[in-house]
Amino acid sequence: MNPSNPIAVLDSGLGGLTVVSALRAVLPDEDLVYFGDTAHLPYGNKSPAVVCRFVRRIVEFLEPMKPKHLVIACNTATALAMPEIVAEFPHLSISGVIDPGARAAVAAAGTRRLPSIGVIATEATVRSRAYEHAILRRRNFARVLLRPTPLLVPLIEEGRTGADPLVESALRQYLQSLILRKIDVLVLGCTHYPLLKNAIAKVTGPRVQLIDSAEQCAQDVARRLDRKGLLRSPARSLNDTTLTGEPAASGSLRTYVTDDPDRFAQLAARFLGMEIERPIFVDPMNAPEITEDPVIWTDALRPTG
Amino acid sequence: MNPSNPIAVLDSGLGGLTVVSALRAVLPDEDLVYFGDTAHLPYGNKSPAVVCRFVRRIVEFLEPMKPKHLVIACNTATALAMPEIVAEFPHLSISGVIDPGARAAVAAAGTRRLPSIGVIATEATVRSRAYEHAILRRRNFARVLLRPTPLLVPLIEEGRTGADPLVESALRQYLQSLILRKIDVLVLGCTHYPLLKNAIAKVTGPRVQLIDSAEQCAQDVARRLDRKGLLRSPARSLNDTTLTGEPAASGSLRTYVTDDPDRFAQLAARFLGMEIERPIFVDPMNAPEITEDPVIWTDALRPTG
Repeated sequence: MNPSNPIAVLDSGLGGLTVVSALRAVLPDEDLVYFGDTAHLPYGNKSPAVVCRFVRRIVEFLEPMKPKHLVIACNTATALAMPEIVAEFPHLSISGVIDPGARAAVAAAGTRRLPSIGVIATEATVRSRAYEHAILRRRNFARVLLRPTPLLVPLIEEGRTGADPLVESALRQYLQSLILRKIDVLVLGCTHYPLLKNAIAKVTGPRVQLIDSAEQCAQDVARRLDRKGLLRSPARSLNDTTLTGEPAASGSLRTYVTDDPDRFAQLAARFLGMEIERPIFVDPMNAPEITEDPVIWTDALRPTG
Repeated sequence: MNPSNPIAVLDSGLGGLTVVSALRAVLPDEDLVYFGDTAHLPYGNKSPAVVCRFVRRIVEFLEPMKPKHLVIACNTATALAMPEIVAEFPHLSISGVIDPGARAAVAAAGTRRLPSIGVIATEATVRSRAYEHAILRRRNFARVLLRPTPLLVPLIEEGRTGADPLVESALRQYLQSLILRKIDVLVLGCTHYPLLKNAIAKVTGPRVQLIDSAEQCAQDVARRLDRKGLLRSPARSLNDTTLTGEPAASGSLRTYVTDDPDRFAQLAARFLGMEIERPIFVDPMNAPEITEDPVIWTDALRPTG
């Protein structure tokens, strides 16, 4: 494996772009390949068997690009398919979004005797109990409160922001029971949710620490690649980025989608804060094949506005 | 073709069950085969090319069952795939939900000089302009106001009813511009929406006539089969049904789904007002095949409660 190989990121659609955004802040010089399975989205209300199939197909497609690391940038896909995919592709380095989020939640809970950790996520992620297991693997005593919040993804994908009254009501309704139970930490257990982070913070108040699973995932990827000596240049910390503004990125971003590339490009700008090159369409039904050179590409990124 | 052959009904998931419900009220003695493409739902935010592929696969699966009629019981699938599917399967009798809804809307608009007809539907249905075309084919002068209402399906699928404050706010927000423009008629252009019919009527007020595309579709199917002499027994009118209560149904209902059958059965009860037999799982990725006798089955229907 070579540091110049790309990092592959897969998701059911758009949500994983918050992971791309965090990866570009931490590792601006890395080439990224993103796969958004827009023909099959959302994964959040589907079964483990079906989600596994979808993810397997995507990994088979990405494998020939020889990614130095593959990120399952979707909480539902991580929760339902990660163990199978890791077992089926033992030669690939793979990580997800749940373990880094759970680790950060446990760290944030600190030395409290019985911390209450809330998790908001899709129905499938909640039902999988993946967060519960990941948290309790790291701490014997913690109260984990899981809340499915199925409307948040459609609200975000309709283009609504935290200022929208429907978003506010939905957040207040969903978070009420967690706030009443005095959670100390709240994990945003879906890669769409960082787009509503400020609105969520407004509802939970300053006492509750928010864990952004997309940011945690990006930092985890940086640590993994660093340990293996596979980084092109040293990782930046997310705090540095906040202080110095968007770093100049030299890495490329190539996106593949299974439905309308133009629509994806249009919505992606909201998740990334910049325009992307037109995504490449991959037929969702037939076994996908790549005909181009899998490593060399030159897609440039244009910042918006 | 024989009157004892089944009527096939297809949908992206659950919404088409409102058509099944209306078909069972109008044609209680007919055997129904329902296909819910739950692995790929929703269709409402996907492209024509992808929706066509999904629908083609389903029709290929249903064809060997020799349906005497096939209903595309999904507004998005009708809008995006109907012409292609009719052309590709010329030997099948096929109808959708849009033409019957448009016809009823035009009839409801009556002799007004320039009636205003509102349509609420998924984003894909609205973008297709299928309702606009279907209405303007029947009347030269009509103002058609289309409003995408993407949150209604996830709200309904989360189990929320018209009494839910979020549903009320969403409806008020979505319908406001149509009400301000003084629509005379409102088409519920998605087969999920009949579940919120009363809540919608509360917002629009008694002056606006609501058109339920699921009911209109069922009556259209009855007329088509009647004309061909393919009905098992004479159709009942929906008004009779309302007066006399649920008719005793002698027809069977067999359902096929591409994701978790148990979850489907559980949610289906809300759409149908009765329990269904466990649906049969169909692999969403491989070309589907049926091994059982395609015509004879004995699934009984158990009314709920």
